[in-house]
This record gives sequence, C-alpha cells and structure tokens, in this order.
Amino acid sequence: MTTKKMAPPRSIGRQLNYTAGACNTVCQTILERYDLSLPQWVILSAVWRESGLTIGDLAAYSGNNAPATSRIVDRMIDKGLLLRTPDAHDRRTVRIEATKAAKDLSHLANFYEDINAVLLDGFSKAEADMLFVLLERAEQNARNWSGRD
Amino acid sequence: MTTKKMAPPRSIGRQLNYTAGACNTVCQTILERYDLSLPQWVILSAVWRESGLTIGDLAAYSGNNAPATSRIVDRMIDKGLLLRTPDAHDRRTVRIEATKAAKDLSHLANFYEDINAVLLDGFSKAEADMLFVLLERAEQNARNWSGRD
Repeated sequence: MTTKKMAPPRSIGRQLNYTAGACNTVCQTILERYDLSLPQWVILSAVWRESGLTIGDLAAYSGNNAPATSRIVDRMIDKGLLLRTPDAHDRRTVRIEATKAAKDLSHLANFYEDINAVLLDGFSKAEADMLFVLLERAEQNARNWSGRD
Repeated sequence: MTTKKMAPPRSIGRQLNYTAGACNTVCQTILERYDLSLPQWVILSAVWRESGLTIGDLAAYSGNNAPATSRIVDRMIDKGLLLRTPDAHDRRTVRIEATKAAKDLSHLANFYEDINAVLLDGFSKAEADMLFVLLERAEQNARNWSGRD
C-alpha cells in the first residue's frame, strides 16, 4: 500500500484541521522563542489590552471553558506572567493582572498580524476577505447544527 | 468589561481554529452515538478501505505521528475494533485489521460527506471550491514558512 493510493477524499473537516494545524505550528515556532504557548499568548493579548479581567472574561475572550482557562492562568502565574488580585469592592471576585514580565512582552500584541502575513502570503485583498467570509459561514453552519441537535 | 468591547482583531489563526473547532464539535456529536472519537473514525476510514495496513501507513494517512497513532490503535484494540496480526512473510511487521465490530460500522465510511453537507450548507459549488483552494494555499504558505525557518 502507498499513502498516495490511500489519499483521503475531499473533506472540509480534514482540510480545516490541516490548515489550522499548519498555522498553529507557525505560531508555536515563533512563540517558543519567548517561552510562550499559543493559549498563553491568547491570554496575554487580553491582559495587555485591559486590566482587571476575571477568569470568566478570559474564558469568553479565548473561546475556552472556565476550567481550561483557569489551568492556563495558573501556569502563567507560576511562570511569573500573571497575578491574581481580589477585587477592591467584592472580595469574592478575583481579577487577573499582567506582571512587569508580561508587560515586557507586549511587543507581541500584534503577533497575529505576522501570522496573517505568513498564511495569506500571495492572497489578494479580495481573496483574503473571501476566506474570512467563507470560514465564518462554515463556522456559523456548524454552530447552528450543534444548537439544534 | 464586556466581551463585545474585547472583540479580538481579524486573525486568520483565530478564525481557522474557531471554524475547525465548531466542525469538530459536530463530528464528535455524531460519532459519540457510535462510541467513537474523531481520531478513531479516521483510523477506521483507512482500515475499512484497505486491510493489512501498518502503524506507519495509518500515521501517514491520519497526519499524526507514529506514537500518537499507536496510542489510538491500542485503545481501539481494547475496544474490540482492531486486531494486530504479524505479517505472514515478515514477523517483525505488524498489520492492523478491522474486527467484525469495526466492519459493522462501515456505514460511517462516508461520514465526512455528512460533515461537508453541514459545514457547506448554502454554499454554491464555486464558493465551496474556493474555500478548499484558499485553505490549501494558506496551509501551503504555513508549511513553506515552517520548512525554511
């Protein structure tokens, strides 16, 4: 058997996962230079922009659930990138703040633009716009299906 | 803070991961009815089509590395879906075969077409073709970057 013979048929699920996987490999290669993972960068991209966020805010922003977001934040606290501080008015609310070490990495705030430049190299503006629109429509179709299932 | 205020900027990396994630949720919802995970279905989609595949063949087909593929196959052997058999001519080569339980699920072989139908609902043929072409170009751009980095 050759893998060529076994070439899988045209599947949007496979193509989406292959393209996202190749994109994430580029992201990880760049972020490793700063000892960051991609989920950690996503959290930083929120706390660089706004202080006093809660775990719930960060979960909504990153698209992860709250327990997964908590685990990522815990690791980042261990690494000295984030601090947990109780809210001044409501001690039950914990707010997440960037440390100086995290602020020193804020030149990575526009990192996603570097990734856009790699992935969309050679794309016309119309092609790039079309890719976003079609991906958003496919995503919405999937979410609509999951919502009614 | 509202999540609306924190709407992240236009990032192809984020959009790819959101669309792939929404797609994988649809896949998992359907496959759970058959007690299958998506990586397990990918392996089945190979062994339904051809017998006598090796772990190396399955790794190449699925896009995973050999150790990850071995772990998935081991779980599927435990679940009674696959059998490991030594090659008749070369005892060092192990070949993976579908059990009767796996063959009984072969009506799922075209499952990816159901996913295409959900994700590409309302797409014209030209739009669907365009999405595949643009995703392949973005994937190739990412792989070219990783290859030269």
